[in-house]
Amino acid sequence: MIVKNTHEISDELLEELKLVSVSTASHMLVEMGYRNAYMQGILPMCFPEGQDSAVGRAVTLRFIPLREDLVMQQYESLTESPHREALESIRQNDVLVIDTGGHMETGVFGDIFTRRLRYLGGQAIVVDGCIRDLIRIKAVNFPVFSKGVHGSAIPRSLMSVGFNEPIRCGGVGVVPGDIILADRDGVVAIPPQCVEHIIKVSREHDELEERWIKLKLDEGASLHTHYPPNAEARQEFEQWKKENGFV
Amino acid sequence: MIVKNTHEISDELLEELKLVSVSTASHMLVEMGYRNAYMQGILPMCFPEGQDSAVGRAVTLRFIPLREDLVMQQYESLTESPHREALESIRQNDVLVIDTGGHMETGVFGDIFTRRLRYLGGQAIVVDGCIRDLIRIKAVNFPVFSKGVHGSAIPRSLMSVGFNEPIRCGGVGVVPGDIILADRDGVVAIPPQCVEHIIKVSREHDELEERWIKLKLDEGASLHTHYPPNAEARQEFEQWKKENGFV
Amino acid sequence: MIVKNTHEISDELLEELKLVSVSTASHMLVEMGYRNAYMQGILPMCFPEGQDSAVGRAVTLRFIPLREDLVMQQYESLTESPHREALESIRQNDVLVIDTGGHMETGVFGDIFTRRLRYLGGQAIVVDGCIRDLIRIKAVNFPVFSKGVHGSAIPRSLMSVGFNEPIRCGGVGVVPGDIILADRDGVVAIPPQCVEHIIKVSREHDELEERWIKLKLDEGASLHTHYPPNAEARQEFEQWKKENGFV
Amino acid sequence: MIVKNTHEISDELLEELKLVSVSTASHMLVEMGYRNAYMQGILPMCFPEGQDSAVGRAVTLRFIPLREDLVMQQYESLTESPHREALESIRQNDVLVIDTGGHMETGVFGDIFTRRLRYLGGQAIVVDGCIRDLIRIKAVNFPVFSKGVHGSAIPRSLMSVGFNEPIRCGGVGVVPGDIILADRDGVVAIPPQCVEHIIKVSREHDELEERWIKLKLDEGASLHTHYPPNAEARQEFEQWKKENGFV
Amino acid sequence: MIVKNTHEISDELLEELKLVSVSTASHMLVEMGYRNAYMQGILPMCFPEGQDSAVGRAVTLRFIPLREDLVMQQYESLTESPHREALESIRQNDVLVIDTGGHMETGVFGDIFTRRLRYLGGQAIVVDGCIRDLIRIKAVNFPVFSKGVHGSAIPRSLMSVGFNEPIRCGGVGVVPGDIILADRDGVVAIPPQCVEHIIKVSREHDELEERWIKLKLDEGASLHTHYPPNAEARQEFEQWKKENGFV
Amino acid sequence: MIVKNTHEISDELLEELKLVSVSTASHMLVEMGYRNAYMQGILPMCFPEGQDSAVGRAVTLRFIPLREDLVMQQYESLTESPHREALESIRQNDVLVIDTGGHMETGVFGDIFTRRLRYLGGQAIVVDGCIRDLIRIKAVNFPVFSKGVHGSAIPRSLMSVGFNEPIRCGGVGVVPGDIILADRDGVVAIPPQCVEHIIKVSREHDELEERWIKLKLDEGASLHTHYPPNAEARQEFEQWKKENGFV
Repeated sequence: MIVKNTHEISDELLEELKLVSVSTASHMLVEMGYRNAYMQGILPMCFPEGQDSAVGRAVTLRFIPLREDLVMQQYESLTESPHREALESIRQNDVLVIDTGGHMETGVFGDIFTRRLRYLGGQAIVVDGCIRDLIRIKAVNFPVFSKGVHGSAIPRSLMSVGFNEPIRCGGVGVVPGDIILADRDGVVAIPPQCVEHIIKVSREHDELEERWIKLKLDEGASLHTHYPPNAEARQEFEQWKKENGFV
Repeated sequence: MIVKNTHEISDELLEELKLVSVSTASHMLVEMGYRNAYMQGILPMCFPEGQDSAVGRAVTLRFIPLREDLVMQQYESLTESPHREALESIRQNDVLVIDTGGHMETGVFGDIFTRRLRYLGGQAIVVDGCIRDLIRIKAVNFPVFSKGVHGSAIPRSLMSVGFNEPIRCGGVGVVPGDIILADRDGVVAIPPQCVEHIIKVSREHDELEERWIKLKLDEGASLHTHYPPNAEARQEFEQWKKENGFV
Repeated sequence: MIVKNTHEISDELLEELKLVSVSTASHMLVEMGYRNAYMQGILPMCFPEGQDSAVGRAVTLRFIPLREDLVMQQYESLTESPHREALESIRQNDVLVIDTGGHMETGVFGDIFTRRLRYLGGQAIVVDGCIRDLIRIKAVNFPVFSKGVHGSAIPRSLMSVGFNEPIRCGGVGVVPGDIILADRDGVVAIPPQCVEHIIKVSREHDELEERWIKLKLDEGASLHTHYPPNAEARQEFEQWKKENGFV
Repeated sequence: MIVKNTHEISDELLEELKLVSVSTASHMLVEMGYRNAYMQGILPMCFPEGQDSAVGRAVTLRFIPLREDLVMQQYESLTESPHREALESIRQNDVLVIDTGGHMETGVFGDIFTRRLRYLGGQAIVVDGCIRDLIRIKAVNFPVFSKGVHGSAIPRSLMSVGFNEPIRCGGVGVVPGDIILADRDGVVAIPPQCVEHIIKVSREHDELEERWIKLKLDEGASLHTHYPPNAEARQEFEQWKKENGFV
Repeated sequence: MIVKNTHEISDELLEELKLVSVSTASHMLVEMGYRNAYMQGILPMCFPEGQDSAVGRAVTLRFIPLREDLVMQQYESLTESPHREALESIRQNDVLVIDTGGHMETGVFGDIFTRRLRYLGGQAIVVDGCIRDLIRIKAVNFPVFSKGVHGSAIPRSLMSVGFNEPIRCGGVGVVPGDIILADRDGVVAIPPQCVEHIIKVSREHDELEERWIKLKLDEGASLHTHYPPNAEARQEFEQWKKENGFV
Repeated sequence: MIVKNTHEISDELLEELKLVSVSTASHMLVEMGYRNAYMQGILPMCFPEGQDSAVGRAVTLRFIPLREDLVMQQYESLTESPHREALESIRQNDVLVIDTGGHMETGVFGDIFTRRLRYLGGQAIVVDGCIRDLIRIKAVNFPVFSKGVHGSAIPRSLMSVGFNEPIRCGGVGVVPGDIILADRDGVVAIPPQCVEHIIKVSREHDELEERWIKLKLDEGASLHTHYPPNAEARQEFEQWKKENGFV
């Protein structure tokens, strides 16, 4: 397969990425030349209180509209069904990303599958379509993102056809091994080689500049001079950093 | 009229149906050959805390885009206005289901109508379009489902043309007397003759099997062996049932 | 039924209405206070060459998503099926207007039904959804308007539930007896009591003013002075009318 | 510019307008002949608890899809960038209303801009598109309305082209100086000359009639007789007003 | 891969299938239990005059939104680019079916690729998205079906990721080896094992019954008695067949 | 205004640009870094037979949803109405580009305005919405592009608010003075400074390379070697050029 990730990143970096917001990462990726990383219209249906973000490596799964004869095989040989294979392949720090073609006419994930994914160490589920049984998913209390909810299940209209292929999700191309970052603002797919830079720049951005600018804004500083800071304001900022113990 | 329900069910069965989730009923109906029962995109705008589900018999109401001359009659003779007739016809354990043609450009139900419907014994309101005055509807604290909210009222663009006809709502054909089941996952229209079977099967499903499988999943059981259970797992399940006092 | 037409117009007036364009009638109706008469997105799929417009009285038909058990009755007792009843009820100078709820997932009218409608004196078919078998409909060479084409037929997803009710079509409320005017620009539903005025005004508009203004535009007249004509231009127009034998 | 507001209203009237609900104002405007005042699909993304409504004078801002060469100028000369100019122009009791053409593919407002707007006395932000960084906007705790959320920022796909022009927002024409009223039901743009009438009528409506009708509905009064009240009910209402100390 | 076709059909059968219309095949497939075979909204952009239909075996190709780094490889190693591989793999009587996820923001096929496909014996191109350079495609004069036209080319927003996988196209699951039938009414994907039955039934249907019914309709026969024919009409039909030399 | 074109091009270059296709220009602009130049979904409603393309300088016009009181002024003082001003300002080789916000609920241009624009030397009309009276526009036989057709006219729902501002049309930012190129494939807005390069490159592309590659494809050349040409094929091409008199 010609379209694949070659870079891998450690669990430690994944942990550090949790401090970056989806919004910051999405904007930074545009600046790095990746304009299509934020998944449009895919929102948290369930997100545990007290948790700030979910991070993991993308395992992908793809559904197409079912064909009535071929779908039978998936229910005769469960171990060969791509969606069950995908689910059972989940390892610590994976995120399952599902391409249904934006299909809103059935749900593809409920609480049983969510519970199994959590047990295997999965960090989140992201669906370009609908989930089902939101009430019971909320009882599992696990990060689940989708475009909507539908009461019916896979056999109503879909069949799974493959996993760990490059897929489409929320208008974004997602390649197995992409780093998925998800929080209450939605989901962004990060090319693995970009993670380190994002963590580094975002730390500077979030911990220093943003903190200081908000302070200044609350004192009445104008965007014209302070955001981004002009030469004078930048001096002021450096001074403030020294005085407040930031290197 | 050739399209009508002939089966009726008792208030007792309605009461038992409250224990079934919309998600379970929707999936079961697909398995019974009714693939179009869950209303797509119709979500709870208001649902009382502490209440788990709303159940009732469908009374239907239909709106079309208004014609400026004909709509006057509805306001001259209020007792003949179909939407007022429909509302005043509500009896204990009815649910009002409204077809606006998916119109998102005005609201058709506010707090006054909701209050009257509750007084008459109605159990829920379901709109294939918009409601209005959500703030005051929340003060009534009654189950109301719709596609969205709009500030304006019926006279902006719609007129009612009939009630207790077969209608369309959320992509579902709804026939007067259908049994409406609604919870936080949305709304499903159940052909009356299916209610008893759904209650029976769902009870087995919900009370025993699902409880046990979740237990097993939390112990690390694989979907390949335990969902659905293979021969061995099924034995294990029967054993567990005996040991835990389920017949 | 509270929503109904009370005015009737003669076949002679229908004949005269054929000289008015859909565009002129639509605009005139807005000026008369009927802002919702042109059917949005419903275009000619087939329109006989050499014919300029189609005119007739609306017979309405309504479909909803099928319910698997109820639809069987329509095929057991064909004479009671609303869509067959509607079709067989067609008389000279009727137009069949069909509400499918904007459903694009199956076709509701093919060449056989079209042929029958033509035989009975129908003037056009207007569908808020899809037709099927466009190739063979073109062989019938009859005015058919819809939102699109779909290969499948009614039993794929719809069932008819009633005819000669007020319906919705292309965002327009259509009441039985409305006068339908259709040409290559689309379809407009005219309240019967408005027909006479439209014919009268449009004749003045089309035969005199428009002819003259085009002449003037081709000579370089400015919109500022000539469209609509200011006092001076109006004099010029009256003069021109006299010289050219218009009263 | 031919399209502009000429009427101005005082801060005191703005304060009184806070007692009117969006729903009431929207309906009243339709009755006054303004059928297009409620912004469709623009909902509160953030609204401070304990606050009932936000009111202010519209300052408008317009974005178009960026052109790669022209957008550079906006980042070279920040003080001339229309979106920064618009923001810095905000005065006490202004509301910023933003036309992105309904663009859902990037966010145009985050927490920094929101913080500045609040400092300058702005009352709300209304976007016909997406905002970003909802988490941090919620920390600012300020009324922000939009169609959705997107992680990326303006430079992904938009550029600002002007402010204080007439714009389109949520299907509504918004003219600078329009009075914006926003609550949990959405946003309505009120022509300034209508404010006084709306306050007056709504007070009668809300404080007296509605209170009494709800009382009657809870006692079982029928819509047929009591909403709107017929002659007899109206007498009853006048009596009740006297007895309860309403003039 | 669990989802695959196992049945193959001869070039002779493909030839016979050309006599069946898309409309007839789509309806017949619904009756055979395949409700999802007609591709919704995919219409002929170019279809040679004088040709009635195009038939062939599906070769599939899938695009996802491009990732800026990964797409470079496709242009460095052209022979490994999935869309070029797919195209060069075309053999006599293949049809190329392309899944772009319904993407309308760039064109994926122009006249050069079309010309190559024709040379290799391809019978048609079907795109769930846009083609480009329609003017030059029309000069090639080859059957091309899509949802629309866009001026830009693949590198604007897409990259190919695989070929001869099961895909989605026009809401239909398409599996390599499906038999594609396309005419002026659109495109239908036929499971290979169904082809023979469709040819057989459609021949009876088209050549005899339909011919006779049209004759009867033109003589004034009612749908109630003649479509479908009741017992008496069926006798009449058998008689007519004998008299007209149909066995 | 910060967003404006500074480059101007001669009528001679406009003439040369007519030889470039919309498809070629759109693709070339993406390669030059302008990814948003082709107007999505805006197609020729009328295009004179025998004419290959239309080219001109953009004059822009913007509509918003009407406000009932403000729109009156436009009809009282016609010379100040922005849409009439825009139209009367048209000079030789202008193209009128109209932003309605993608509004499909009324038509903004009919045959009278088209006739005037043609008289003044306009080259085409491009509407991000609907035109009306297509039948009569076809009688004018002038290049008109839009998203659709609607029978009603401006006063149904829109009012013009300004001309020669930067606008949005078909998802493209259009700035006054942009060079509009339109043919049967649609419309592209070209930044003026790019025109010369596009003409130059496209000439090489169209007149030589494309001609030769089609020749080779018809002889069976593979895309792998000949499109784009590898080193060997390029030599072959140079040889062919010499032999056929291309420099």
